[in-house]
Amino acid sequence: MSDRSAEFDRIHDLLAGLPAGERVIVGPGDDAAVLRPRDGFDLVVTTDTFVEGRHFRRDLLDAVGVGRRLAAANLSDLAAMAAQPRWAVFSCVAPRALAAGWLRDVEWACAAALAADGAAVVGGNLSSGDGPCSFCVTLFGEVERGRHWTRSGGRPGDRLAVTGTPGRAAAALALASAGDAPSPARVPAELWEAYVSPPSRVRAALALARAGGVRAAIDISDGLFGDLAHLAAACGAGAVLRGESPGVPGGGAQERMGPSDDYELLLAIEPARYDDCARAAAAAGAPLTPIGELAEGGALLLERTDGSRVPLRGAGWDHFG
Amino acid sequence: MSDRSAEFDRIHDLLAGLPAGERVIVGPGDDAAVLRPRDGFDLVVTTDTFVEGRHFRRDLLDAVGVGRRLAAANLSDLAAMAAQPRWAVFSCVAPRALAAGWLRDVEWACAAALAADGAAVVGGNLSSGDGPCSFCVTLFGEVERGRHWTRSGGRPGDRLAVTGTPGRAAAALALASAGDAPSPARVPAELWEAYVSPPSRVRAALALARAGGVRAAIDISDGLFGDLAHLAAACGAGAVLRGESPGVPGGGAQERMGPSDDYELLLAIEPARYDDCARAAAAAGAPLTPIGELAEGGALLLERTDGSRVPLRGAGWDHFG
Repeated sequence: MSDRSAEFDRIHDLLAGLPAGERVIVGPGDDAAVLRPRDGFDLVVTTDTFVEGRHFRRDLLDAVGVGRRLAAANLSDLAAMAAQPRWAVFSCVAPRALAAGWLRDVEWACAAALAADGAAVVGGNLSSGDGPCSFCVTLFGEVERGRHWTRSGGRPGDRLAVTGTPGRAAAALALASAGDAPSPARVPAELWEAYVSPPSRVRAALALARAGGVRAAIDISDGLFGDLAHLAAACGAGAVLRGESPGVPGGGAQERMGPSDDYELLLAIEPARYDDCARAAAAAGAPLTPIGELAEGGALLLERTDGSRVPLRGAGWDHFG
Repeated sequence: MSDRSAEFDRIHDLLAGLPAGERVIVGPGDDAAVLRPRDGFDLVVTTDTFVEGRHFRRDLLDAVGVGRRLAAANLSDLAAMAAQPRWAVFSCVAPRALAAGWLRDVEWACAAALAADGAAVVGGNLSSGDGPCSFCVTLFGEVERGRHWTRSGGRPGDRLAVTGTPGRAAAALALASAGDAPSPARVPAELWEAYVSPPSRVRAALALARAGGVRAAIDISDGLFGDLAHLAAACGAGAVLRGESPGVPGGGAQERMGPSDDYELLLAIEPARYDDCARAAAAAGAPLTPIGELAEGGALLLERTDGSRVPLRGAGWDHFG
């Protein structure tokens, strides 16, 4: 991290007024930040990059929306590990001509969303670069030693559930992007809200971790089916989804599933603990929707309402596919 | 951090074969990495972004050079805090058309340089994006609780010294870039080596920390004079540099000082400990060059060989100046 006079003033301007973090020994303004992890805790680290034209369109999403979605992408990864967010670094590459106010609003919105879950921005970097602007956040959290979730702990018979209602943000984006002139105006307000201000599942994940019973978890922002395939493979299991479940499209709809653009979690839950988990998640603002279960073998099947089973198709978003 | 089929395979390909880190509980391949800091240590975090056309030119620097310099930029920040590098995350935004082999070579070279100082790449992100490619590394290190260096601990009378010979990399780049057809061929090999494979000062910093006596430190990759100004201001002091010192251009040369492009350290050292420090640094491969001292008041002065003093001018590189 470096200081570069006007750039430094600009970074300082970006960071001033953001909430100071806990256990921050040296914050922004030195060569590096110094943080004090709690003894007995592990550190959980994720990073996500948002690139204009790939992860957001400036004609559809304002600075606040970009910042909130960037925070949500990182928070969702920590939620999927049952970690408490603590600190973040925020970097930006932007053309010189881009308005400083717009960049500041992105960072403020991102920092405010991170702060709502307990994380403080402790440093960052601002570089000029031609082409689309991009933002990179690295977020660190803490979890009691050995108590993190992974993708791989599920067993055949575990109940599969998603938090919230995946698909709303993707639907909002699809509606807004349709037609010659992209516009949010044609999107129902509740759907648009799910896209521009995705709810964080950190609180629900921490409540579920306290309740016990979650054996595997994954963030499904790249699409439910693709991420289910990753989770099942990591567990050495297959899965059966039920077509009548909300969030699981039946019939031909599944072929159209791409990135969900929602930051929800897919969980594999010990059957005997499912009801406790459902209560804990609902109390934390993220009702669970059961969608099926893990199964023996490696097949991923969709069980339709008539009882017939078909192979599940569809994969997540692929940047280089 | 996310998995995205072909993108996932590509990331996996990028990360396979890199050295696994110590105290890595969950490495690449889940939603986030899980790391186990040592009890009693603080965490030191820095991030640096390299943008094509700003921080490197592909017609002058090959993939290995880009990766090594990116590692050096981050390692230098941790050295300036006296921290032991441990873990890193590596992100890249690149056009789809860019050769996968080139990206892999950047990451490998970066990871190898980080590994040489004890840090392992534990995750990352690969996104497609039009425009110049960019790389962002966030590097974490450890330091015994409360034993980090800052920019602010120096006092008037402290000796100022730099590690190595700042200016070689900048000279190499200037020579290579001169003329209509940029080429490294006209650059003396030793200078070019300083640019494409900058030495790490981590080992020297750790040796100096053990020796004791360093009161303030800063990385001078943005230019000696600008970073000296930051250090002096943080210390609430001024400084006198001596024009006859290697690394400190006398006469008109100072007006031309920009980014040094070298990853060296500027240190403020307790006078009584200077000789011990010089021995420790030299034994760790980074001889110190004394360049002056911190002084009362806020003025930054250059003392010429004839004893006259002139205000020091020149500032570091400014992305948005």
